[in-house]
Amino acid sequence: MIAVLKPDTTEEQKNSLIDWLKGQNVEVHESRGKEYTVLGLVGNTGGIDVELVESLSIVDSVKIVSDPFKKSNRKFHPENSVIRVGDIGIGDGSCVLIAGPGPVESREQIVGLAKRIQKAGAAILKGDAVHRLSSPYDQSDPDANYISLLLEAKKETGMPVMSEISGLEQISRFEEVDLIQVATRSMQNYELLRELGRMGKPVVLKRGLSNRLKELLVSAEYIMAGGNEDVILCERGIRSFETYTRNTLDLSAVPMLHELSHLPVLVDPGRATGSSALVDPLARAAAACGADGLIIDVHQDPLHAPYDGARSLTPDQFAKTADHVRRIREVLS
Amino acid sequence: MIAVLKPDTTEEQKNSLIDWLKGQNVEVHESRGKEYTVLGLVGNTGGIDVELVESLSIVDSVKIVSDPFKKSNRKFHPENSVIRVGDIGIGDGSCVLIAGPGPVESREQIVGLAKRIQKAGAAILKGDAVHRLSSPYDQSDPDANYISLLLEAKKETGMPVMSEISGLEQISRFEEVDLIQVATRSMQNYELLRELGRMGKPVVLKRGLSNRLKELLVSAEYIMAGGNEDVILCERGIRSFETYTRNTLDLSAVPMLHELSHLPVLVDPGRATGSSALVDPLARAAAACGADGLIIDVHQDPLHAPYDGARSLTPDQFAKTADHVRRIREVLS
Amino acid sequence: MIAVLKPDTTEEQKNSLIDWLKGQNVEVHESRGKEYTVLGLVGNTGGIDVELVESLSIVDSVKIVSDPFKKSNRKFHPENSVIRVGDIGIGDGSCVLIAGPGPVESREQIVGLAKRIQKAGAAILKGDAVHRLSSPYDQSDPDANYISLLLEAKKETGMPVMSEISGLEQISRFEEVDLIQVATRSMQNYELLRELGRMGKPVVLKRGLSNRLKELLVSAEYIMAGGNEDVILCERGIRSFETYTRNTLDLSAVPMLHELSHLPVLVDPGRATGSSALVDPLARAAAACGADGLIIDVHQDPLHAPYDGARSLTPDQFAKTADHVRRIREVLS
Amino acid sequence: MIAVLKPDTTEEQKNSLIDWLKGQNVEVHESRGKEYTVLGLVGNTGGIDVELVESLSIVDSVKIVSDPFKKSNRKFHPENSVIRVGDIGIGDGSCVLIAGPGPVESREQIVGLAKRIQKAGAAILKGDAVHRLSSPYDQSDPDANYISLLLEAKKETGMPVMSEISGLEQISRFEEVDLIQVATRSMQNYELLRELGRMGKPVVLKRGLSNRLKELLVSAEYIMAGGNEDVILCERGIRSFETYTRNTLDLSAVPMLHELSHLPVLVDPGRATGSSALVDPLARAAAACGADGLIIDVHQDPLHAPYDGARSLTPDQFAKTADHVRRIREVLS
Repeated sequence: MIAVLKPDTTEEQKNSLIDWLKGQNVEVHESRGKEYTVLGLVGNTGGIDVELVESLSIVDSVKIVSDPFKKSNRKFHPENSVIRVGDIGIGDGSCVLIAGPGPVESREQIVGLAKRIQKAGAAILKGDAVHRLSSPYDQSDPDANYISLLLEAKKETGMPVMSEISGLEQISRFEEVDLIQVATRSMQNYELLRELGRMGKPVVLKRGLSNRLKELLVSAEYIMAGGNEDVILCERGIRSFETYTRNTLDLSAVPMLHELSHLPVLVDPGRATGSSALVDPLARAAAACGADGLIIDVHQDPLHAPYDGARSLTPDQFAKTADHVRRIREVLS
Repeated sequence: MIAVLKPDTTEEQKNSLIDWLKGQNVEVHESRGKEYTVLGLVGNTGGIDVELVESLSIVDSVKIVSDPFKKSNRKFHPENSVIRVGDIGIGDGSCVLIAGPGPVESREQIVGLAKRIQKAGAAILKGDAVHRLSSPYDQSDPDANYISLLLEAKKETGMPVMSEISGLEQISRFEEVDLIQVATRSMQNYELLRELGRMGKPVVLKRGLSNRLKELLVSAEYIMAGGNEDVILCERGIRSFETYTRNTLDLSAVPMLHELSHLPVLVDPGRATGSSALVDPLARAAAACGADGLIIDVHQDPLHAPYDGARSLTPDQFAKTADHVRRIREVLS
Repeated sequence: MIAVLKPDTTEEQKNSLIDWLKGQNVEVHESRGKEYTVLGLVGNTGGIDVELVESLSIVDSVKIVSDPFKKSNRKFHPENSVIRVGDIGIGDGSCVLIAGPGPVESREQIVGLAKRIQKAGAAILKGDAVHRLSSPYDQSDPDANYISLLLEAKKETGMPVMSEISGLEQISRFEEVDLIQVATRSMQNYELLRELGRMGKPVVLKRGLSNRLKELLVSAEYIMAGGNEDVILCERGIRSFETYTRNTLDLSAVPMLHELSHLPVLVDPGRATGSSALVDPLARAAAACGADGLIIDVHQDPLHAPYDGARSLTPDQFAKTADHVRRIREVLS
Repeated sequence: MIAVLKPDTTEEQKNSLIDWLKGQNVEVHESRGKEYTVLGLVGNTGGIDVELVESLSIVDSVKIVSDPFKKSNRKFHPENSVIRVGDIGIGDGSCVLIAGPGPVESREQIVGLAKRIQKAGAAILKGDAVHRLSSPYDQSDPDANYISLLLEAKKETGMPVMSEISGLEQISRFEEVDLIQVATRSMQNYELLRELGRMGKPVVLKRGLSNRLKELLVSAEYIMAGGNEDVILCERGIRSFETYTRNTLDLSAVPMLHELSHLPVLVDPGRATGSSALVDPLARAAAACGADGLIIDVHQDPLHAPYDGARSLTPDQFAKTADHVRRIREVLS
């Protein structure tokens, strides 16, 4: 960590700051420029409250030299991580398709869909086993649980299954799920992340609507610090001022996360834009810039889906998109 | 709800849409302009998936006529709501000061601080009983619980106490807390909100970092729909591109929420800016534009606070700010 | 335009509003729902100040039914526009590469670069003839003019040339330029746009850092309303809270603008991200989602460029990117 | 400037970077931490392209130690600057009211309004002498000029006048204006700013919709570097994701700019929110947090203003707001 002192700092003020820093077990190296004095801190700087140092009246600004994420950092782990989900390897250079409906509705629905998307090229089946509340007046039973239907579809097709968790209280229901997806709004639910770190199951961590990439990597660290290094990152759109699209898909996140981290990166184009018409072009774009996989909502009859119909492809549309993705990856390999 | 059809919609397409809408139990009124046909939907429009209608190829755009929040809506409840917390009335025209440390540390700390801030004008004591995880490597015990210390300070001073909840799994610890604050990152944890709606205790709902005011009011509705109408809104800064301040305090939210809703509105100036130096001017601004109360972090020794030191006032600084707030409110009344 | 009145509007208030609206030459159709009265306005609604109507105390909200852009609107012009720049057709299904340095420096530089990028696949040469001021202390001569060097490179290679304008006072210098690019910070310089509308030369209109797509299309309309319909849109990144990248490239803009408008859409991946390392993956992504062309900074020696070196490719890097783009477009056609 | 090198940088790579830096006339001090090597650059670092250094493959990150603005920086000029406009001192501790219509319409209008707002407490009269284009189809004459009417109102009342400039080509019309306001969309029109730096007239510089405070201060520097140090900053709302208000008024900017700079800071609450109903509460808030003045639109009949009616107060509403501002400042002094 580097702290830059203001030009008019007195010797006494400076020494008092140095004493306080030493009291927190860090070494301080001082160097003087023409206008500014710079303090370099070495040692256990992780224990120092950066905002607090920055708020001191004699401190002009602070720079953290090392990244706040270690285990996910490519600097200390140059090779790509490949995360195994059943037979599938995410991060191995392929573009894995994870597809399925928003909410799981019935055995017939999920088994039927699973077969159709598998044929079209999907490798992992997704579906909400814990249904989302769709409005303040929604009377859904919070304990209703459709995991068993997902597992039946898995049995019929052999596809591993992914489902979304949004609170620590749901965790016991996910024991047989192959891949746990942390909901966007739970990206900074640190208590949940810590528990997933102990669970030993691969986790898809979705970027929060207003979270920086650095924060996404710090959230990954909460899981990895507990011993579970099977974390997969996912870009799904951030909130901006644009109103024609629901969110703004930040595709720069794909190459940027690949530069910063060895973890695989997925893209969810439907959740970003809210519109099925934009899924195909943005799935193509994500494949072209190197995404390790895509999450795509597919529904047998989007007009009658309980929710998420607006961004769901039909199985036929999905087959076309899967074909586009495959051709782009072939030509770039 | 109003749906505007594209100019080149055929009769057949239009009739097929109308049939689908009628199948969802809404009446459809059609009116034709020169270029666009407009469908007015009346009846049970709450069951219609607006994004789905908007995504149809013949639909140009959709307008929801009624607000998605009812119980918090000033249109149907013109008088200000006054929420009682012990003897205190929030929303009664006064500017209630809620103050205290970030984390509760010890009996001595919290009782000592409580006495000093009460003397300076605070009406409600705040403090984190469930400590936040401060980094991925933080080894805090998730079950450690400082509620009892808060309650001792309440006993000594008579001040009601407020503490923050961030997950449904913590809810049983909050039974004796007078005022439950929902953490910013939990504003859209609908399962938690629904449970708070059944709990019969006043709730402070903090705006999420990237949430629109409409979404804040919909979140309030999740609580109110369960029967608990004692909801207090809180502006605490939103995420923007500005980097000199931690977040951007959106003070327009105060008069705007007062226009939209009858619920009281608090402001947390320290959390918005991350800097104690900005707390006093922004507390003055919040008081001047009509906030029903302020949440202010106060610590006996901010340089040695476990966290949140950067934005904490000392008790003396707090006394000055309390005085400024009082004088501004007197002169405006 | 549709105006929704608040539930408690009196007959007298409503009639007074209707009278005022009729005084502005619009017809008013009234329809009543259970809670809200809706006024549909027909006729010359373009003259009405929408924000003013919205601000009236009895008006709940306003919806503009028709888009604020006409000539660029795909609804009234379903076929793609193909804009001719010399022999090149932008919008004809190909992905046109526009490449060249930030600032034009010398005859040798620009002619040499032009030949290399042409060989690699570029169709149009770009370069700043009016150099940007790089700091408050920059002593550049505002009248220095490198157009003649661009034109020499055109003569040597046959490539049409594009250069950037940032103020109305520069317009006389652009008479011989084939394609005028409006700088991002000038997207809403309406006086300049109006003048370009009279000039009869194709214009590339870059999206402002904080402008919605609707505003981009309205800006295009300022040019087209003057009779110049040869407008090409360009996405180049918007400002968000993310800090690892300079701006956030909004690639959803490509398919969304294609849906809204018949005008071609370019992407400038380097300006969006500020980093040459991200140019290739995002150029591939832009090509994959249907961009009609790309603007790419290329410099013979980026480490010694006067400015924009950070995002400039070397000629060899450009050749690789051009090859990727070509292969992606072949496989998708 | 400080450059942090990546852990795996070789000696050779490091030395090659140091040579390149020395070739640009800066001294380099090297210091080694456990993982990172840090280069401190001293001397003429202003000539170095920071983005370029940051983009180098061996560079982890760069920190600029000194601020990019000098003349506006409070560190080198601790006392507040007081800018004289006629008899008025902006920055002297008072809260100066600048009021008047959006567009100047007629002699009768502007003289009548000037008298009424002067009586209510305004010190400076504002009005657009160059009318804005209100739509792509607006046929306004770009040369129409209402400066003379403003000057007649000045003669009648003795109030100095302020008017807005949006392009370099308009500058000759502003010779007799007392205070030139740079339009929000021209905050980074560096050619215009440079010219205003030579003009010797006080300038109000409005923050751009998506500009950071640092960029506002750099823009001020463009004016000050030319010799004109009479610059007044103005916060008028930034673009965010919130849609109930037109822009998000960033009042933290007031105390933050006061901390960073000695220049006075104004607030324009109407332009920020787009709604006259929010002007009074936010004017009070701005006064309470220390703004050196306010810009407030006042119109004799907002319902019939050519533009900006939605955010204009009537003269009676303005008188009330002026009274609130005065009382708040008295009680805080």
